[in-house]
Amino acid sequence: MECLAHFNIMETNPTTKQKGFPPVGHRRWVIAEGYIPGTSIGPKPAMVSHETACVLNVSEEDAHLEITIFYSDQEPIGPYKVTVPARRTKHIRFNDLTDPQPIPRDKDYASVIESNVAVVVQHTRLDSRQAENALMTTMAFADTETVMMR
Amino acid sequence: MECLAHFNIMETNPTTKQKGFPPVGHRRWVIAEGYIPGTSIGPKPAMVSHETACVLNVSEEDAHLEITIFYSDQEPIGPYKVTVPARRTKHIRFNDLTDPQPIPRDKDYASVIESNVAVVVQHTRLDSRQAENALMTTMAFADTETVMMR
Amino acid sequence: MECLAHFNIMETNPTTKQKGFPPVGHRRWVIAEGYIPGTSIGPKPAMVSHETACVLNVSEEDAHLEITIFYSDQEPIGPYKVTVPARRTKHIRFNDLTDPQPIPRDKDYASVIESNVAVVVQHTRLDSRQAENALMTTMAFADTETVMMR
Amino acid sequence: MECLAHFNIMETNPTTKQKGFPPVGHRRWVIAEGYIPGTSIGPKPAMVSHETACVLNVSEEDAHLEITIFYSDQEPIGPYKVTVPARRTKHIRFNDLTDPQPIPRDKDYASVIESNVAVVVQHTRLDSRQAENALMTTMAFADTETVMMR
Repeated sequence: MECLAHFNIMETNPTTKQKGFPPVGHRRWVIAEGYIPGTSIGPKPAMVSHETACVLNVSEEDAHLEITIFYSDQEPIGPYKVTVPARRTKHIRFNDLTDPQPIPRDKDYASVIESNVAVVVQHTRLDSRQAENALMTTMAFADTETVMMR
Repeated sequence: MECLAHFNIMETNPTTKQKGFPPVGHRRWVIAEGYIPGTSIGPKPAMVSHETACVLNVSEEDAHLEITIFYSDQEPIGPYKVTVPARRTKHIRFNDLTDPQPIPRDKDYASVIESNVAVVVQHTRLDSRQAENALMTTMAFADTETVMMR
Repeated sequence: MECLAHFNIMETNPTTKQKGFPPVGHRRWVIAEGYIPGTSIGPKPAMVSHETACVLNVSEEDAHLEITIFYSDQEPIGPYKVTVPARRTKHIRFNDLTDPQPIPRDKDYASVIESNVAVVVQHTRLDSRQAENALMTTMAFADTETVMMR
Repeated sequence: MECLAHFNIMETNPTTKQKGFPPVGHRRWVIAEGYIPGTSIGPKPAMVSHETACVLNVSEEDAHLEITIFYSDQEPIGPYKVTVPARRTKHIRFNDLTDPQPIPRDKDYASVIESNVAVVVQHTRLDSRQAENALMTTMAFADTETVMMR
C-alpha cells in the first residue's frame, strides 16, 4: 500500500499509536428536512422522538459549528454553537438545542451547519409517536462553496 | 475564524441580525422514487401517508420551482409551480399538488425539480398504510448541469 | 429566468407541450446493499417484501440498462437487461429479475447498473417480514467514470 | 452502444464470460452515524439489531479495508482489518468486529473506512428493539482526497 509523505503518526499520543487524519469532509452542510414530533412512546431517553445531526471531526483541531435553523413562516434563527472536539464524533439532537431558543415541536424546519474545519454530517430521525419506531437517515448535503463564518 | 469579503450582515433586518447567505445547492434535482399510498391509518393530517420534497432556499431571492412528474406508462406532466420565499424552507407534499392535475395514488412516478436559484432538496416518505408508520429519506440527486427553465 | 439556446419545445408532442429534457444523471450506478427477505406478511403484491431500483430516464432516447449482481461467495451474474423508455420512470423490482437467473432470497448481494444514456437511480426496500412494514431509501452511488458496455 | 477500447472480457474465466470491471468508487468513506442497540426482539441472527457497512469491490484485486471507530468521549480505536475479495460484496456487521476490541452497545460512534482499491460503501441499520423492525440506509460519504494507509 502507498504511504504518502504527510502520513503522520501522532507522536503526542504514543500509547494508542493512532495515526493522524487530515480534515475529512466539508465546511458547510445542509439538511432540508427537519421535524421534531411533539409526542413519544417508549422508555426515555433512548426512545424519545428525536432528530439528530451526527457530526464526525477526524481532524487534529476542534470543530466549532454554527447551526442556523430555517422555517417556513419566519426568519431564520441562529447561530446555535456546538463544538466537536478533535478526533471525536458528536450526535447532536436538535431537541436539545436551546440557545438562542428551543426549536418548536410539530413544526417544519431546515438547517445549515457551518464549521471552521471540514467535518462529515449525517441526518437521522427516530420517530416514536406510535407503538413501534420508525427510523430514517441520509448524508446531509455537502456544499462545496467557501464557508462564511460570522 | 475567517471572515470573507462578501460576508454580509443584512442591514435591512437589524432586529434579527441574521447574516445573509449566498445561494446554496443546485438548480435541478431529481427524485427517482415516488409513490403515494392510497390508504392511511392514524390521525390526520400528520399521519396521512405522504411523499414530501423538502426544499431549503437560504438565499435572499425567492425560488420559483417548476416540478415535472414522470410516469412509467404516460407522458410527463407539468410544470407544477411552487414558490419557496427567500430564507425559507418549504416541505412540499406531492399529495397536495393539483395544478395542472393531481398525482394519482398507488402509481409509480418520479420527479424533476428545477429552480431559478440554487436550493437543496431532500425526499421523505411517511407510509401509514399499516398500524405503525414507516419513514424513509434521502437527499435528492443534484444535477450539476445548467438548468433550462421554460 | 434564463432560457438557453438548446431549450427545446417538443414539436412532436404539441398537445402536452412538454419541453424536452437533455439526459440527466450518470451512466453507471452502484447499490452496495441488497437483500430480498424470504418471507412477507400483508396483501400481495404491494406488501410483498421487495428491493427496488427506481430509474428515471428524462431523455428523448430509450435507456438500455445492464444490471450485474455481485455476491459474497460466488462470481457475479449478469447482465440482466431492462429498458426504460424515453421520458419514463421504471421501478425495477430485483424480485422480478429472472434472466439469466432469479436472485436468491435471504442472501446478501450488490448491484451495478449501467446505461447507454444518463439516468438517475434510487434504491428502496420494503421489508414486510413482520406485522408492520419498514422502509428505507437512498440515492444509488453515481460513478462518474466512463461506462464500458458489453 | 459504445464499446470502449479498454473493454475487457475476462479471459481467465471463460465459463461465466463476465466482463471485468475497473475499480469503481472511492478509497475513503465516512459513516458519521453509528449506534448498536443493546437489545433485540425476533429470531436470530436475521432479526438481531445490527449496523452494517455494505461494501462492493467490483475490481479484479482484493480490497484490504482498515476501519477506524471514533467516539464522543475517548480516542479512536483501530484499525479493524477486513478483506473484500475481488468481484465480491461483503456486508460487514459492526456487531461482529472484535479485533482490536468489540464496539460497545448503546454508545454513539462513527467510522472511517479506508481501502487500497476503490470500493462503494452503503450504511444500513436494522433496529429490532421493539416488536417491529425499523430500517434505514444511506450511501456513506465518499471522500475524494488521497487515502493515507498506515
